[in-house]
Amino acid sequence: MQNAVILINTEKGQVRAVAERLADVEGISEVYSTCGRYDLVAIARTRDFESLAQLVTEHLNRVEGIRDTETLNAMQVHSRHDLETMFSVGW
Amino acid sequence: MQNAVILINTEKGQVRAVAERLADVEGISEVYSTCGRYDLVAIARTRDFESLAQLVTEHLNRVEGIRDTETLNAMQVHSRHDLETMFSVGW
Amino acid sequence: MQNAVILINTEKGQVRAVAERLADVEGISEVYSTCGRYDLVAIARTRDFESLAQLVTEHLNRVEGIRDTETLNAMQVHSRHDLETMFSVGW
Amino acid sequence: MQNAVILINTEKGQVRAVAERLADVEGISEVYSTCGRYDLVAIARTRDFESLAQLVTEHLNRVEGIRDTETLNAMQVHSRHDLETMFSVGW
Amino acid sequence: MQNAVILINTEKGQVRAVAERLADVEGISEVYSTCGRYDLVAIARTRDFESLAQLVTEHLNRVEGIRDTETLNAMQVHSRHDLETMFSVGW
Amino acid sequence: MQNAVILINTEKGQVRAVAERLADVEGISEVYSTCGRYDLVAIARTRDFESLAQLVTEHLNRVEGIRDTETLNAMQVHSRHDLETMFSVGW
Amino acid sequence: MQNAVILINTEKGQVRAVAERLADVEGISEVYSTCGRYDLVAIARTRDFESLAQLVTEHLNRVEGIRDTETLNAMQVHSRHDLETMFSVGW
Amino acid sequence: MQNAVILINTEKGQVRAVAERLADVEGISEVYSTCGRYDLVAIARTRDFESLAQLVTEHLNRVEGIRDTETLNAMQVHSRHDLETMFSVGW
Amino acid sequence: MQNAVILINTEKGQVRAVAERLADVEGISEVYSTCGRYDLVAIARTRDFESLAQLVTEHLNRVEGIRDTETLNAMQVHSRHDLETMFSVGW
Amino acid sequence: MQNAVILINTEKGQVRAVAERLADVEGISEVYSTCGRYDLVAIARTRDFESLAQLVTEHLNRVEGIRDTETLNAMQVHSRHDLETMFSVGW
Repeated sequence: MQNAVILINTEKGQVRAVAERLADVEGISEVYSTCGRYDLVAIARTRDFESLAQLVTEHLNRVEGIRDTETLNAMQVHSRHDLETMFSVGW
Repeated sequence: MQNAVILINTEKGQVRAVAERLADVEGISEVYSTCGRYDLVAIARTRDFESLAQLVTEHLNRVEGIRDTETLNAMQVHSRHDLETMFSVGW
Repeated sequence: MQNAVILINTEKGQVRAVAERLADVEGISEVYSTCGRYDLVAIARTRDFESLAQLVTEHLNRVEGIRDTETLNAMQVHSRHDLETMFSVGW
Repeated sequence: MQNAVILINTEKGQVRAVAERLADVEGISEVYSTCGRYDLVAIARTRDFESLAQLVTEHLNRVEGIRDTETLNAMQVHSRHDLETMFSVGW
Repeated sequence: MQNAVILINTEKGQVRAVAERLADVEGISEVYSTCGRYDLVAIARTRDFESLAQLVTEHLNRVEGIRDTETLNAMQVHSRHDLETMFSVGW
Repeated sequence: MQNAVILINTEKGQVRAVAERLADVEGISEVYSTCGRYDLVAIARTRDFESLAQLVTEHLNRVEGIRDTETLNAMQVHSRHDLETMFSVGW
Repeated sequence: MQNAVILINTEKGQVRAVAERLADVEGISEVYSTCGRYDLVAIARTRDFESLAQLVTEHLNRVEGIRDTETLNAMQVHSRHDLETMFSVGW
Repeated sequence: MQNAVILINTEKGQVRAVAERLADVEGISEVYSTCGRYDLVAIARTRDFESLAQLVTEHLNRVEGIRDTETLNAMQVHSRHDLETMFSVGW
Repeated sequence: MQNAVILINTEKGQVRAVAERLADVEGISEVYSTCGRYDLVAIARTRDFESLAQLVTEHLNRVEGIRDTETLNAMQVHSRHDLETMFSVGW
Repeated sequence: MQNAVILINTEKGQVRAVAERLADVEGISEVYSTCGRYDLVAIARTRDFESLAQLVTEHLNRVEGIRDTETLNAMQVHSRHDLETMFSVGW
């Protein structure tokens, strides 16, 4: 499983709408509306790196109301949880 | 459940060691070593806001090798997964 | 009680109008027009974290004339005053 | 009454200690440990502008563990609370 | 007397016009067009802090052609000149 | 007369001492300790541009406790005051 | 052979289209769509420095959808590969 | 002779046109189109400081296609060349 | 093949030495010393994403003289060259 | 002839000494101590691009007292002066 943390700023007044649109995109497992410098943080969890690349370069581009994104691609994961099993149901 | 995304830069040469130390901290569910401007991104998931505050202001402070942290506290969560059930086992 | 400090920049020529609109929003206890990099600083004091989240993600979004906000959510409070009693009248 | 919002970053591992020291300084009414780009936000409330100037240029300088401060001096206050009465007891 | 240094950037091609407009505003004693990151630096010298607050939050807002301002409010003055006498004529 | 606005940050705990040292430097007419991103703002007023250059590149260098300076050299002055007469006494 | 690394941000929704247009420009050997602060990174490899200058100042200017570019011109190359032979076919 | 280095960014697609317009402005001796964060660097060399001030605050303002300028005014010159003689022909 | 562009700043006086050390690291195909904001740009080309992650999180950490790195991981490649064949010899 | 503009910040108190050292380096034609964000701006003029690369990556590295440099390499020159003849005497 390939994970990525996506830092997002939205157009004015679009925080909630973008959060809901993003949560429906395949490959996005969670969207948090956050305090601080970013409006939203999305966690992407895809089968492999190619799916992540497609998600970021194509699907994210089509979500309306996004102003800026910065993708932090995970190179290694450290967790006591078996994230792979928890999130991959249905692949 | 209270979630937070913590952006972390570490002392030089300490990325892996800090990641392992953080993954052992109670309340940190995942630590990702990432491409881009941050060395690590940790996801905190605690029972409530008070536990998160304690985690960030006290426990994180004691982890060696951290240079800088910026906590993005989640105000709302949008997810098709039941994160509460998935991550709260054992509380 | 949950406190937050909200740093705000307004549209040009809107500092005073936005300050007055914000001061009327439930949960905002004080609005300061300030010297320096930010036009306004608002202090939010809500019953609990959920009310703060709602205030920031929904009510603030509807205030006209705001260009940018950055919410600094309080994790701990240190004060010789009993802020809880002073500000919670009417809850 | 003169108000100011002071954004503070502390030396590593000193967040809590600095918060406690600041809360004891005369003229500082509240200290918040916060999420995001700043470690602490202190609210100064002094009798007049001269007292504020003295607090910032002299007393703050003597508090150990502070790395950086940025004072946002309030020029106007908008509040439904009578802050003057609430905070000036004892002057 | 209350002094403040105001760093200003203007709309494109408006440097000279804004400088002349600002120099006519009561409370602005000098306007410098400057090299470097800011187009103009204005020095405000008012009777007291309240007049400065009014100047910055109201009068400056009405000057056309200003894009951005950052007010650096003086807390203490060190000078071999008697600025108070030099600049307060007519108050 | 050549004017310049010098934005200054000092070593920790040195704001007041540097302000006093600077106020004694020939060519520095005023030093303000300020709110916001800079610790001090000094106004230099010299006979001509060569004196200003010497002040900035040589005399300022010798003042202890300065961490960073940024000189904003004035190209034009707009003022209702006769600054030349007011500040040039003794040249 | 003269090499340069060109960091590129595109207009919203134009990442893929710009990548394809750039890959067709003579002198651009590779275009990467990347994670992090930049949308695209292009590698230019030209016969000599004059060709690179022409590529950057003229041809790049005509590619639609580019918002910002920053060219990092290579002064020396360290590689175990014979880049000159690998990329210069056809000159 | 008064020298200044002017860092310039232009409107999109205007680098070459602005460079040519600037090179025709009296007092601008050289215009370089550059790699890196700035599109153009112009070197101004004028008879004295007043001419430079006029060039920057008036003539530069009228050149179309410029988005941003930052003037770095020279306070001292160190050179094995006699720049004064080389560049002042015709004054 | 997985590509990444790594922006690098080195300790003072270490540009050339770090460039040579990096060029010897397996998986780094080219190192450019560059003009502008970064000292070096390295291109990593590895068999797959796991090898890249190992290169960045482990091998790069051990190269002396590096001060800061920012890895821009390639999600898609557009090139008229068959980079896979050109660079994968020996895998 | 290859030109480059080099933006330089020096160690504290070293502006003049570094300026003098740089002016003696072969290939550096002028060094300006400047107002604003940079301490010094050096103009490099070398026979060709290879000499410039050698100057920047090797000779500049050996000059003591430099803290930071950013080289803006010229891709095209627009000037009414015959810079080539003026500066190349002795090559």
